[in-house]
Amino acid sequence: MARMIKYDYKFMSDKKVGRFGFRQKELADLQKKLGKINEKLDKAKNSHDLSFRALPYDYKMLTHLYKLNKILRNHFDNMVVVGIGGSELGAKAIHGALAGDYANQLRNKKGLKIYFAGDTTDPKPVLDLLKIIDLKKTIFFIVSRSGLTIEPLANFLFLRKKVIEKVGKSHHANHFIVSTLSNKNPLYQIAKREGYLVLPHYAGGGRYSALSINGLLPALAAGFDIKNLLKGARAIDKICKSNKLEKNSPALFAALQYLAYKKRQQNISILMPYSYYLDDFSFWFRQLMAESVGKKKLGITPIASLGPSDQHSQIQLYMDGPHDKVITFVRVEKIRFDLQIPKYKNSEISYLGGHGLNSVLKIEHLATSVSLMENKRPNGTIILPELNEFYLGQLFFFFEMAVVYLGEFFNINVFDQPGVEQSKKYMYGLLGRKGFEKEAREIRRYI
Amino acid sequence: MARMIKYDYKFMSDKKVGRFGFRQKELADLQKKLGKINEKLDKAKNSHDLSFRALPYDYKMLTHLYKLNKILRNHFDNMVVVGIGGSELGAKAIHGALAGDYANQLRNKKGLKIYFAGDTTDPKPVLDLLKIIDLKKTIFFIVSRSGLTIEPLANFLFLRKKVIEKVGKSHHANHFIVSTLSNKNPLYQIAKREGYLVLPHYAGGGRYSALSINGLLPALAAGFDIKNLLKGARAIDKICKSNKLEKNSPALFAALQYLAYKKRQQNISILMPYSYYLDDFSFWFRQLMAESVGKKKLGITPIASLGPSDQHSQIQLYMDGPHDKVITFVRVEKIRFDLQIPKYKNSEISYLGGHGLNSVLKIEHLATSVSLMENKRPNGTIILPELNEFYLGQLFFFFEMAVVYLGEFFNINVFDQPGVEQSKKYMYGLLGRKGFEKEAREIRRYI
Repeated sequence: MARMIKYDYKFMSDKKVGRFGFRQKELADLQKKLGKINEKLDKAKNSHDLSFRALPYDYKMLTHLYKLNKILRNHFDNMVVVGIGGSELGAKAIHGALAGDYANQLRNKKGLKIYFAGDTTDPKPVLDLLKIIDLKKTIFFIVSRSGLTIEPLANFLFLRKKVIEKVGKSHHANHFIVSTLSNKNPLYQIAKREGYLVLPHYAGGGRYSALSINGLLPALAAGFDIKNLLKGARAIDKICKSNKLEKNSPALFAALQYLAYKKRQQNISILMPYSYYLDDFSFWFRQLMAESVGKKKLGITPIASLGPSDQHSQIQLYMDGPHDKVITFVRVEKIRFDLQIPKYKNSEISYLGGHGLNSVLKIEHLATSVSLMENKRPNGTIILPELNEFYLGQLFFFFEMAVVYLGEFFNINVFDQPGVEQSKKYMYGLLGRKGFEKEAREIRRYI
Repeated sequence: MARMIKYDYKFMSDKKVGRFGFRQKELADLQKKLGKINEKLDKAKNSHDLSFRALPYDYKMLTHLYKLNKILRNHFDNMVVVGIGGSELGAKAIHGALAGDYANQLRNKKGLKIYFAGDTTDPKPVLDLLKIIDLKKTIFFIVSRSGLTIEPLANFLFLRKKVIEKVGKSHHANHFIVSTLSNKNPLYQIAKREGYLVLPHYAGGGRYSALSINGLLPALAAGFDIKNLLKGARAIDKICKSNKLEKNSPALFAALQYLAYKKRQQNISILMPYSYYLDDFSFWFRQLMAESVGKKKLGITPIASLGPSDQHSQIQLYMDGPHDKVITFVRVEKIRFDLQIPKYKNSEISYLGGHGLNSVLKIEHLATSVSLMENKRPNGTIILPELNEFYLGQLFFFFEMAVVYLGEFFNINVFDQPGVEQSKKYMYGLLGRKGFEKEAREIRRYI
């Protein structure tokens, strides 16, 4: 049987952290609900909202992507993902976890170099990017579910102009692939008119799209094993069928997050991987948690943290500040690349010599986790056997399902985001989009 | 007179956000304390803790750095800063603000390429780094105030070995500059024994060290105008002499943060610059706030956020979630590099054409800020006329002084970090450092 990521939650319990931890009785109460919840989710499995759960089984999409990737490999050196929020955070998290900061500068890089643009309207990043890539060897992947999102569209229009200047109007279409809903939205219409390849966006929302084409195409182009990403997701999907919290770790995680917020006013939830390469993943999680659960005057505020660097930045607060947070660590058991600290003789730091950095990393996590517990700070740890595609796929699906369960416990819709509509209307108004004249008038008072 | 950054706090007031905002009376009560606080700070100005306030006036240090930099420019292409927490976050923030993501890949880069290592014990980043830099052309800047910090020392020992392999034992000393207290700590002793250049760490703590050699040497090496950084800091220092909150914006900012936490249980404080290049700055702020104020079971939890990308990730929560946070935006009035969105005819998105991205960025901030206010979410904005050395220096000093005032309002010591001692002892124990055998025994129970 495939190995699974594990969720160690013993330091979340009142037996370890007193009145700041969960009580067994509270967990038992939620356990009673799990069967009904799973039944409900199963009935709704064909809804748009839950269609992300079918993504790991979409073998047709896989075949299509592998074919497309062959063509991309033959023609391009770079892929620029142009998206924002859920349209890019999944792809970024995969690339961060498996490639890392310097990947694009390594000479022997396998696959395409992956860049991200479109997540800001600050003009300088895209201008800088154009200085370091050859447009002739670059494919742009424009991702916007609605086809209306200002930031990626603004960047797209600018990049389109630059590509046309470089390769000519007639050839420029070969440099653009679009992921959007096939529903006559502006991006879809432009893509069709210009002859860009359109990959239909799956029915569900951006923040659950990491394992759709949005995340998979850049991952495949970069040379990663996307089959194993999906295999990992299926392994988690399988355990979510269980109606026992102890077997269904995403539901268990959700239950403990819910209890911390509801029963103990712990309104902050920190994700702190002890792996440099999972930093982008925390920012993916941060969106998933914030947009899914933060509504109707409730919501856990997620924080992306990183070990060990935040030991020297945030741990003072976590250890000694108010009892308003729970922490989830991520630990990687076996790191592929290790190195030994050289011994420096006759010094107070001679003791460092001979230790592998991998073991130092584990020691740092252990010391932090135990100290927090001793200070009555609830914390749990997700353990990955290795940081590879299979366990990363598990990690994505673990949190996606955890958030779905969290919505059931809170009794809220984790798939909408009603709170951002008004500010969008103001923006449209100020930018002169038709139909938003009233909003333009309203907000001009504040200029 | 020099222009100053401005703090616009009208949307923090109960007149705008009802019971979630401050009352004028509360502010008046804190106003009464400001004179005494300034008097106290003035009396203690020669203490180690407050020595950061003297940094902007240290012209001797400047002269020394300019001399040193000439030598570095002649011999090296790269500088690698090896530090963690306060030892590197300032340098990172300066570099992020003034150079940006792709700086090291630009062909016409002025100054040295700046890299950061030492803020993790994950072995892969340093291994990757070694693949893209030429050690013969690299100077390493090792920063550790105590000279004991595990992560930078472990990386230093490894890098030292690599440099020796490359250039030989006798020449390797030219590749290392050390910033540490001159007090016989292990790093200082090694540096003296090996013949490394030692730049004495200023007396105060790492999180107030951005405008010391820790931040200034990398900034100067990268080609930035460090004189103007310090000039900006002095401009803020001057307004801090005022005993009127309305003139002393760091004290005013502190007062509003204090009131939000103390009177309205808003335990989360978000810094959200609408500038891609200020993202690293937010992480510097996040340490400053967390370690300074987070102690004795109180403390505001800081969050580093970024506009506009977090409009598509966190704003749903900020707008519609619990009333447990205050937000501070940073807006840059005039961006040096702008670009115009090309017009796409006969499309629903034609309205985007002709707008400059700079103005779109401002519109996004305005729409978000007003919508939050209308949803009764207190938010303020710090306005920078431009993103350059002078205003960046102001920004650093603004927050450093704000945190000092915050400590006075809370009546806590913002210069210590007592909460991280136990976990350090556990680490030393597990790594076999002498004198920590008891801690090793205690924590081994959890392995």
